[in-house]
Amino acid sequence: NLYGRGATDNKGPVLAWISAVETFRALKLAMPVNFKFVIEGMEEAGSLGLEKLLEEEKQSFFSDIDYIVISDNLWLSNKKPALTYGSRGNACFFVECGDKDLHSGTFGGIIHEPLTDLIALLDSLVDPTGHIQIPGIYDSVAALTEEERKLYESIEFDLEEHKNNSGVKKFLYGTKEEILLHLWRYPSLSIHGIEGAFHEPGIKTVIPAKVIGKFSIRQVPHMELSVTEQQVVEHLESVFSKRNSPNKLKVSMPLSAKPWLAGVNDLLYKAARRAIKTVFGEDPDFIRDGSTIPVARMFQTIMQKSVMMFPIGAADDGEHSQNEKI
Amino acid sequence: NLYGRGATDNKGPVLAWISAVETFRALKLAMPVNFKFVIEGMEEAGSLGLEKLLEEEKQSFFSDIDYIVISDNLWLSNKKPALTYGSRGNACFFVECGDKDLHSGTFGGIIHEPLTDLIALLDSLVDPTGHIQIPGIYDSVAALTEEERKLYESIEFDLEEHKNNSGVKKFLYGTKEEILLHLWRYPSLSIHGIEGAFHEPGIKTVIPAKVIGKFSIRQVPHMELSVTEQQVVEHLESVFSKRNSPNKLKVSMPLSAKPWLAGVNDLLYKAARRAIKTVFGEDPDFIRDGSTIPVARMFQTIMQKSVMMFPIGAADDGEHSQNEKI
Repeated sequence: NLYGRGATDNKGPVLAWISAVETFRALKLAMPVNFKFVIEGMEEAGSLGLEKLLEEEKQSFFSDIDYIVISDNLWLSNKKPALTYGSRGNACFFVECGDKDLHSGTFGGIIHEPLTDLIALLDSLVDPTGHIQIPGIYDSVAALTEEERKLYESIEFDLEEHKNNSGVKKFLYGTKEEILLHLWRYPSLSIHGIEGAFHEPGIKTVIPAKVIGKFSIRQVPHMELSVTEQQVVEHLESVFSKRNSPNKLKVSMPLSAKPWLAGVNDLLYKAARRAIKTVFGEDPDFIRDGSTIPVARMFQTIMQKSVMMFPIGAADDGEHSQNEKI
Repeated sequence: NLYGRGATDNKGPVLAWISAVETFRALKLAMPVNFKFVIEGMEEAGSLGLEKLLEEEKQSFFSDIDYIVISDNLWLSNKKPALTYGSRGNACFFVECGDKDLHSGTFGGIIHEPLTDLIALLDSLVDPTGHIQIPGIYDSVAALTEEERKLYESIEFDLEEHKNNSGVKKFLYGTKEEILLHLWRYPSLSIHGIEGAFHEPGIKTVIPAKVIGKFSIRQVPHMELSVTEQQVVEHLESVFSKRNSPNKLKVSMPLSAKPWLAGVNDLLYKAARRAIKTVFGEDPDFIRDGSTIPVARMFQTIMQKSVMMFPIGAADDGEHSQNEKI
């Protein structure tokens, strides 16, 4: 193991590719393909400038490329290699109520409290089983094909280990397949917090009157962000109207990113699969990522070429953490 | 008008009493009663040491007192004097769920999110009409007597003005009597906020995993704090158990204060009423305070004497605010 900050995310994987090219050259072997490298040092800070660069260089530096390979992200297991073929998008929402702080002694019991309205709105979003309650939200989710379902069966994923690593006592689902399906290819809704309410330790008997609830819905094919936005707005307005509250409701989607999905039968996935089989003696897991990887979608959209995510680090590499290794 | 920081809260009222005694002396009039003054300069900082002082001096300085008059608090109207005969207590609650932050991309969709549990718990507390949903919470609330109801009829209170002053567009009730009853002599529940969730501007797609909801229930006679606590705990545990969540629930009541209520037919209220009628030519409003006034309850409990709150400032004096006046 090599230890160090960024060993697996992402200095190691960058060097792996450069070393591969160096090795071919040192051994005087013919390179089976040509390479162009894009080394991005700003990924953790939002890849500022990358999109602009891609647009500008599309007709020059990138004019003759056929495929794009990105080595970010990790395998799902500690030992079995994986190829990543999709990531969820995200739609972030703000729900705002009211406008002026009041004292709970002086107004408690006689007004429609904005935070009570907001709590009810947030409570209408998802049921205790994790099912999103917004009408229509699942309508555009791609149906699970038999071929896709089979991919999940062979994936190496230790549920108990994942539970222990995360400190989660019980998942919403009992089988590996259900867990991965709900993490990768179904939408999920998480509530992140409330701005404007009392958030410090201790107690303050305030009636917060301008509160903003924040939640996000992870997006999967073939959900459309504009449709999700409309469904959320309509749902919240409907719940709110039933409360007969004089408070003002404002719903917005300040940030969003589309999901990314590649074809596992694209030529570059076939080539990578063969290469992994040759080196590791087994087929890779075909995995997705529950998080959003904007860069994959960005390359795909701008270059209009097939993109493959080719992770080189293992699940236990501890990226962003103490004792990061590869 | 006299303007200045503390003009009405509370230098003016203190000086009013001292000036009254001075006037009797200057005019060489016989004092109808004897006075002992307690001038408290720490009220805004929690009256540190006052309770200890009262206990210590009960048998000496306070040994010969018959009645206690406190001039804090304000009239309900700008021109009509008032006597205050009660204040609500308060029971503050913490509801805690979970223990470790997780990323919504990596876990969104497969776990019971603690904040979702907490939102559901908070949403179970009060309905859109302001009615508290905790079983039994209204059981011990004193029944409204005919005599008490009549007190409310004659109170001078301009609903529209109160609405404008507070920036509230619509109250939960339409009449003066209902508003005051729900502000003074019925319990109310306010949610103050959540500790541990994302509370900053912008968005962070975190799944907060140790979150503490904070709310309080204003207490009125004859609610008992220990009973309120038990009802809240049982209600929240019942709602939580129906969610089948593996998260941990912890409910506590870190802070509480009992309500205070005086008898409006006590001799000192009768005397004050007569004095006000003599000076102002009209009977005072008999009012209560929706907030908690710990000092009134403290004097009553320790001295076991009748306490009267005798406000001297008017509703528009602007205590704690710009251009405070009396």
